[in-house]
Amino acid sequence: MTTLPAPLRLNDAARARMHEDYRHLHAHPELSMQEHETAAWIERQLAELDVPHFRCGGTGVVAVLTNPETPDGPVVAFRADTDGLPIAEQTGLEYASAARSALPDGTQVPVMHGCGHDTHIVSALTALRRLHAAPQVWQGTVVFVFQPGEETAAGARAMLDDGLWDRAPRPQVLLGQHVMPLAAGSVFVTPGTAMARADSQAITFHGVQAHGSQPQASIDPILLASHVVTRLQGIVSREVDPRDMAVVTVGTFHAGVKENIIPASAEIALNVRTYSSEVRERVLGAIERIARAEAEASGAPAPTFRRLSSFPRCHNDPEHAEAVAGALRAELGEQNVTAPAPFTGSEDVGALADAIEVPMVYWFFGAFTGDDPESVPGNHHPGFAPELAPALDTGHRAALAGLLAYVGR
Amino acid sequence: MTTLPAPLRLNDAARARMHEDYRHLHAHPELSMQEHETAAWIERQLAELDVPHFRCGGTGVVAVLTNPETPDGPVVAFRADTDGLPIAEQTGLEYASAARSALPDGTQVPVMHGCGHDTHIVSALTALRRLHAAPQVWQGTVVFVFQPGEETAAGARAMLDDGLWDRAPRPQVLLGQHVMPLAAGSVFVTPGTAMARADSQAITFHGVQAHGSQPQASIDPILLASHVVTRLQGIVSREVDPRDMAVVTVGTFHAGVKENIIPASAEIALNVRTYSSEVRERVLGAIERIARAEAEASGAPAPTFRRLSSFPRCHNDPEHAEAVAGALRAELGEQNVTAPAPFTGSEDVGALADAIEVPMVYWFFGAFTGDDPESVPGNHHPGFAPELAPALDTGHRAALAGLLAYVGR
Amino acid sequence: MTTLPAPLRLNDAARARMHEDYRHLHAHPELSMQEHETAAWIERQLAELDVPHFRCGGTGVVAVLTNPETPDGPVVAFRADTDGLPIAEQTGLEYASAARSALPDGTQVPVMHGCGHDTHIVSALTALRRLHAAPQVWQGTVVFVFQPGEETAAGARAMLDDGLWDRAPRPQVLLGQHVMPLAAGSVFVTPGTAMARADSQAITFHGVQAHGSQPQASIDPILLASHVVTRLQGIVSREVDPRDMAVVTVGTFHAGVKENIIPASAEIALNVRTYSSEVRERVLGAIERIARAEAEASGAPAPTFRRLSSFPRCHNDPEHAEAVAGALRAELGEQNVTAPAPFTGSEDVGALADAIEVPMVYWFFGAFTGDDPESVPGNHHPGFAPELAPALDTGHRAALAGLLAYVGR
Amino acid sequence: MTTLPAPLRLNDAARARMHEDYRHLHAHPELSMQEHETAAWIERQLAELDVPHFRCGGTGVVAVLTNPETPDGPVVAFRADTDGLPIAEQTGLEYASAARSALPDGTQVPVMHGCGHDTHIVSALTALRRLHAAPQVWQGTVVFVFQPGEETAAGARAMLDDGLWDRAPRPQVLLGQHVMPLAAGSVFVTPGTAMARADSQAITFHGVQAHGSQPQASIDPILLASHVVTRLQGIVSREVDPRDMAVVTVGTFHAGVKENIIPASAEIALNVRTYSSEVRERVLGAIERIARAEAEASGAPAPTFRRLSSFPRCHNDPEHAEAVAGALRAELGEQNVTAPAPFTGSEDVGALADAIEVPMVYWFFGAFTGDDPESVPGNHHPGFAPELAPALDTGHRAALAGLLAYVGR
Repeated sequence: MTTLPAPLRLNDAARARMHEDYRHLHAHPELSMQEHETAAWIERQLAELDVPHFRCGGTGVVAVLTNPETPDGPVVAFRADTDGLPIAEQTGLEYASAARSALPDGTQVPVMHGCGHDTHIVSALTALRRLHAAPQVWQGTVVFVFQPGEETAAGARAMLDDGLWDRAPRPQVLLGQHVMPLAAGSVFVTPGTAMARADSQAITFHGVQAHGSQPQASIDPILLASHVVTRLQGIVSREVDPRDMAVVTVGTFHAGVKENIIPASAEIALNVRTYSSEVRERVLGAIERIARAEAEASGAPAPTFRRLSSFPRCHNDPEHAEAVAGALRAELGEQNVTAPAPFTGSEDVGALADAIEVPMVYWFFGAFTGDDPESVPGNHHPGFAPELAPALDTGHRAALAGLLAYVGR
Repeated sequence: MTTLPAPLRLNDAARARMHEDYRHLHAHPELSMQEHETAAWIERQLAELDVPHFRCGGTGVVAVLTNPETPDGPVVAFRADTDGLPIAEQTGLEYASAARSALPDGTQVPVMHGCGHDTHIVSALTALRRLHAAPQVWQGTVVFVFQPGEETAAGARAMLDDGLWDRAPRPQVLLGQHVMPLAAGSVFVTPGTAMARADSQAITFHGVQAHGSQPQASIDPILLASHVVTRLQGIVSREVDPRDMAVVTVGTFHAGVKENIIPASAEIALNVRTYSSEVRERVLGAIERIARAEAEASGAPAPTFRRLSSFPRCHNDPEHAEAVAGALRAELGEQNVTAPAPFTGSEDVGALADAIEVPMVYWFFGAFTGDDPESVPGNHHPGFAPELAPALDTGHRAALAGLLAYVGR
Repeated sequence: MTTLPAPLRLNDAARARMHEDYRHLHAHPELSMQEHETAAWIERQLAELDVPHFRCGGTGVVAVLTNPETPDGPVVAFRADTDGLPIAEQTGLEYASAARSALPDGTQVPVMHGCGHDTHIVSALTALRRLHAAPQVWQGTVVFVFQPGEETAAGARAMLDDGLWDRAPRPQVLLGQHVMPLAAGSVFVTPGTAMARADSQAITFHGVQAHGSQPQASIDPILLASHVVTRLQGIVSREVDPRDMAVVTVGTFHAGVKENIIPASAEIALNVRTYSSEVRERVLGAIERIARAEAEASGAPAPTFRRLSSFPRCHNDPEHAEAVAGALRAELGEQNVTAPAPFTGSEDVGALADAIEVPMVYWFFGAFTGDDPESVPGNHHPGFAPELAPALDTGHRAALAGLLAYVGR
Repeated sequence: MTTLPAPLRLNDAARARMHEDYRHLHAHPELSMQEHETAAWIERQLAELDVPHFRCGGTGVVAVLTNPETPDGPVVAFRADTDGLPIAEQTGLEYASAARSALPDGTQVPVMHGCGHDTHIVSALTALRRLHAAPQVWQGTVVFVFQPGEETAAGARAMLDDGLWDRAPRPQVLLGQHVMPLAAGSVFVTPGTAMARADSQAITFHGVQAHGSQPQASIDPILLASHVVTRLQGIVSREVDPRDMAVVTVGTFHAGVKENIIPASAEIALNVRTYSSEVRERVLGAIERIARAEAEASGAPAPTFRRLSSFPRCHNDPEHAEAVAGALRAELGEQNVTAPAPFTGSEDVGALADAIEVPMVYWFFGAFTGDDPESVPGNHHPGFAPELAPALDTGHRAALAGLLAYVGR
């Protein structure tokens, strides 16, 4: 069923090891930028194989697998993200997570591999083990980037700031993949924009506190922020070309402690999704324009803006996307490789490629065998549970197929 | 039933003349600042009596009635306004108006004495005739001010600009009265604030026109002006002391000619009511602040403001109000003179007194004999119909009683 | 300087005791409905005097002081409230509070007599001691009601529910007083409405949660609640007679935990102030109408309403108010007793009188000697510090003068 | 340069006739559903050729051109719309229109062929003449549909209601084309959705009239409609998948005659653009839901909805679009036939095909030779001026090429 060179195929022991690794990682998720145990575990696997590697960006790990027989061959990078989420797992799996950890603000929360990054780690590691074991079927160098902190858009940035591409060989292409509620054995590879840019910020509106019976002594920040929320709707409805994608979500609104006190301030937090940088600039500019003007309309001081995160573009180079799609079609079957419209979700993988201006190909792979795999509890849901065997089978084969498109002999 | 000196009381002929005058005027109303026939008619009455008089402010007439026996006595002014309204009369009266005339913009409209200014003219004229006929019972000078254009706040201004108080003797007090849906024989005299200030303006919001399918090419002035309308509510609800009176009414909103074209502009017209100058300043300032800031929130140019009218304060000097109330109580009965809370309606009579800093007393008199005189169709209603005999009886007696408080012997 | 009968005047020892009591109570404030130590302390003072008393409403204490010589004389009630506030005192006084306590939800907070109820307790107790010591100058019975939980509108209700007027003699009038930032030696007694009704409620809007990138899968409760907040402004600005008093304050708005998740619900808490029951009904009805309709406009389920508190009317019987004002004028001086417009703040004292339909007189007394006593840090401010000697001197004299208007000989 | 069979190519006389026809029609535009002279002119051309034809839908004309040699061949329909617009032409052309006519409401307005329908008529007529002249190069039947009233979405409906497809042979495909600001010699053919659906409606909100000083006696329809306008923004911003196209434009807002009168009603008119019927249903449903609920939020009666127009889908059958595109590529050159994203503008041509469930292909053809043909004054602009010779050359060749894809030998 597979077209991979025989030496790269899994035997029973390798498959058992892959499954065991997954169960271990799934049971031990860690929060973004706190992936200390995960990083140490990855390092142990690499040390066992004697593959050169280094820490990067705190809890990131980079493995440089050079084919000893053909060290001067092509260089390709493969990225796997490693962090979990503050979600209380409700999958009922025997290897479900019971982990708890502290958010940056000190709050203790449950932790879950709720976005399937454990499948990413294990798929990448399995590909690495197979390539390590079979130098005769490939050439050159594969740089495996185990990246922390994808969920907060902090990890790619941290690795770049820590000199990732000064310390690892510069690849000609960066590959990566993400598990999704799709049929096992199938992948999505969309040329061009694959996911949305996402920009998050908090805005604090400053009013003047007063007793609830004396509004004339106040500048009411709740009324101000409410006008901002209603005003922001006009950005998507009126300022963006109706054929372009843009989302402005106000996800939090917090103000006040007592119903009879007009509070001194109100804070909202926003999340913006766009595909193109032009639309992104227009939307972010409009948000600031509206927030400032509404504060003026209330006679209030200028609001305070605080950037929370910024997910970059996730752009698949069309030529490389076609090349990788071809390799995946060969391995997974013609009908199992499609190119749907871009997702409105976001990823920071693009930053790793854009930082050194190399092309990227990022695809989504399936993990479910039921009748309607797209309707299972999805990523970030407490019940998100990729089916172990088919998920990892799809994940490691897609990784190997994609890599061989560049380093195959 | 009356306590007026016998020579001032009406005989049958005088009463018949009063009623006839009223029927004539009621049937021939004229629009604000177009009271040409009315002014000429008043002039004819004055000429008949040989009372000195002069035109002032276009269609205003001033009569100076000096007692020949006591020319150096007190000077008091009495104001009666003379204009009708663009309303189609629906009273069914035999002397109902069928008049039509042109508004300043050229539109032909029906005209009606819909605010009862005809009762004001006739009451004042009857008082003048009685005083003229009986110099033995009074002293000094009464300046009768027949003022045009009250409804548009243009008339008092026009008379002042035309040198009213340079041409007429300066009075020690200004009196005036207005007919209302109250019981005939009763009056309201409220010390201090008696009516509201009223300020009207139009605001034009400038956007950018575009086809309805291309909002991104527009700046939508309808959305902008709609946000202004909702934003303006916060002035009364949050910026004014809840115990103070303030009204911000947006009475017109006009924009666009076709549903699939985003128009280039939107215009709203506002009317503001306040009692105190502090609240007035605060409200007008907030309107401008909000209109400008909302234009900025839309990325639009600054709006254009156009003042429509400004009705001044209507303030009864407390001491004089008490003096006049005493005289009215003597004439009309103790229980028929009350001092309710100020009205939220407006008048420009106050400008005549404030211009020369003399005290004013302005009262409301009743004109109805039914069980519930306050529930008849009121001023500005197409069916507003003061009952001829009781209205004029109350009006001319109240005028004489108020005047005698100053010029009685 | 006082006109009180000589036996009621304080000697040095009594004055020292009054001051000492105040310092003790001020240093030991307790939260609403938790006034256990305060109640016990009051009971000890009453026991010391052998005055009959009983617990009522948990932490309320009622003392029934009957003149042994004239037990059948008039019966009058005097109410003093006893609770402190969750405020961190910043007066710098040597007897400042360092108390902390737990709110009903378990949060530990600092506690302060930030509304001056300690002056109420001590003024009442001092009056009780003087009357107890001098039965020869008065007659009948005074019921002293030491009421807990005024700040949350729970205390009057609790005492009534605990049978207050079944257990205490029914008075012919209920008196009470409140310290304010006014000149010591002066009082405000306003006939009719003296303070506002206040009604508080929380409203939860139910939406549908979704990822921030998928608004189409959500019903956005933040947008819904924001439209409600802006919509509510129209109640005061458009639905209430501009001459009536009404305030609708949204004091809290809480929704969401993360900027990229559209939350499942949003909660706002509102405080309404009105003088008349008609306006109150209209405003509360409009709030519910708007909240329900806006939920429908969002396609959301009906919101959930939760009543937080309801402060009743605070209505001074005009005749009794004049009688008490006369007594206060005699004691404090003509110019020191005025009748300003009603306050927009609220009180639950009215419930005690309205429950048995007896007239009430409630006044405000001053406590400051500086040039501008109305500009000191006011009630509920961390720096609110009535001046000990002049505040208590005014408070106990006003209490005695008011009481003697009914029970004096 | 052309690949058309030689007998179909224009000689100088035919080209001169084509130009002359165009100049005549351009100078004599008529408003929608008033195309009486235009219809008569078309009929005269057809009569001259003895081509069977009939009136349909008032001012529509249908010509049935059957090849006498091969009457049983394929049947294809070609639609050309014929109406002008109420625009004052500002092209400066020697054959510019000076026409004026009356709108349905009686208003006299200037009329212009501002959307280029004159090029459609002449291109179709030229194709008809060439096919009529050269029966040897084609087979079957072409039904030429000269449709009135496209601009108001009334014309297709009127022809269908008048039995179009009962009276004309049923075609296997419907073709049509529209001139656009594109390079002459180029066309756009987009498979699937080619233009947006458009639905227009007016909504009247009913309030209660009152004097501007008495908002409490009113239900303010301007405030109500303003809340609706702001509320409607949430449909596109929150209720539609961000990747779907939807526009909700409020193009007019009219209420009130005087700033100090709160009017009895407010009317807005909306235009909705969507591609898919699911999104259309969702948006139209949300508009009604919001309008009704906001009226309830104001305590107002239900609003009145009035449908203005409804442009159907404009869907190009993908297989036929590819077939036609192939024919156009052969005639115009590979690089001159592209398939851009759908337009957000609208057309009623789709109704003609959907009524009998036959596939449609509708394309856009260019008419400008300058450097930047897409930046000239566009359709509906007073300066829209297709370049006569290149526009008609492109138009009639595209029509013939498209038709020959079906009826060619």
